[in-house]
Amino acid sequence: MAQQNVYDRLKELGIELPSVSAPAAAYVMSAQTGNTIYLSGHIAKKDGTVWVGKLGATLTTEEGRVAAHSIAIDLLATLHAHVGDLNRVTRIVKVMSLVNSTPDFIEQHLVTNGASQLLADVFGERGKHARSAFGVAQIPLGACVEIEMNVEVDG
Amino acid sequence: MAQQNVYDRLKELGIELPSVSAPAAAYVMSAQTGNTIYLSGHIAKKDGTVWVGKLGATLTTEEGRVAAHSIAIDLLATLHAHVGDLNRVTRIVKVMSLVNSTPDFIEQHLVTNGASQLLADVFGERGKHARSAFGVAQIPLGACVEIEMNVEVDG
Amino acid sequence: MAQQNVYDRLKELGIELPSVSAPAAAYVMSAQTGNTIYLSGHIAKKDGTVWVGKLGATLTTEEGRVAAHSIAIDLLATLHAHVGDLNRVTRIVKVMSLVNSTPDFIEQHLVTNGASQLLADVFGERGKHARSAFGVAQIPLGACVEIEMNVEVDG
Repeated sequence: MAQQNVYDRLKELGIELPSVSAPAAAYVMSAQTGNTIYLSGHIAKKDGTVWVGKLGATLTTEEGRVAAHSIAIDLLATLHAHVGDLNRVTRIVKVMSLVNSTPDFIEQHLVTNGASQLLADVFGERGKHARSAFGVAQIPLGACVEIEMNVEVDG
Repeated sequence: MAQQNVYDRLKELGIELPSVSAPAAAYVMSAQTGNTIYLSGHIAKKDGTVWVGKLGATLTTEEGRVAAHSIAIDLLATLHAHVGDLNRVTRIVKVMSLVNSTPDFIEQHLVTNGASQLLADVFGERGKHARSAFGVAQIPLGACVEIEMNVEVDG
Repeated sequence: MAQQNVYDRLKELGIELPSVSAPAAAYVMSAQTGNTIYLSGHIAKKDGTVWVGKLGATLTTEEGRVAAHSIAIDLLATLHAHVGDLNRVTRIVKVMSLVNSTPDFIEQHLVTNGASQLLADVFGERGKHARSAFGVAQIPLGACVEIEMNVEVDG
């Protein structure tokens, strides 16, 4: 699977890349240095608007997992816009997942699996990334999850 | 503007680089690997001491924005001390901004704009960075904002 | 000290590397791009199970420092498993330390020193890293501390 065309794989998984969101200030959604692309933190959206909520209070772990899955698709859309061809991705290197959490919610890893699993499903071996997941006090606009990642592409 | 001398630009903006703060333990304020310099998380200061406060409780968004702006200047001072010549910076790659927040404060992006805008003002195109901003439960010494970044310099 | 054999140094310090923990989902404990290895966030453990607790509520700063020290050893175990020979490490580049904190606990830097000091003790000059430390609302499984890092190895 590692060498399968990424766009064929996305089609098999029933995933359509959305349009790319624009940054809200003097920054960009992705920046490259050498072969590494850094993607800005992307916040969860539902039906085109911010997916507001806090795990442990207003959202279930399963809803959080779905939110993380949808962010991973948004990240792929940004990555596609940056590199032009997702087949140039040689490694998803590192994922950082911020889960809007009450002081008692302890399933940030299960929430984040929604993104990690999607990346593995799409990229196979190349999708196996290091990651950190943890609970934060809040996220811009009240979003329930925010995820950033950095990615290696071919020269 | 991208090619303007950085120190001339700082003078135009009325910015004077402060002296560099020292790390409080067995770490350093910057570390380089290849062409990438990682700057440690810098905490907000006011009149030379830690700027204590929590957004959503004791500080306004505008005060937080000013704090983020002042941290960006401190980061440039550390970067200058590391590279010797800020004109060697080819890209501000990635910014991570931690905002000391109550569970209800949701304007971390507006706070962080204080830093992002300064970096764009100083470096132009080279200053356009990827970033993540989010609310944290606390920051060392009770500081209101903490920002780290990594930067690409020429070979 | 910088050139001392790392395993001799570990023995001098009385440190035995534990067995490596496995990731709980579709990610890996370490991923390499170029000469940089990214280690996933490792959570604190005590007697083989998750070290649950929150600084400012159920754990003291000193207990947190011990937890961070033990995570640093776990990170070295993962790094050893990845590179085969810790003498190949040329620089501990960047550490990010997440401390499970109440909204009032402000000694995340003292907690994190437990990890920073260990890295300096083991690697000398090569162990001097950039770092960020801050308080988070929660950590997966309720762990008291989580630490990730990235490391430069020789070509």
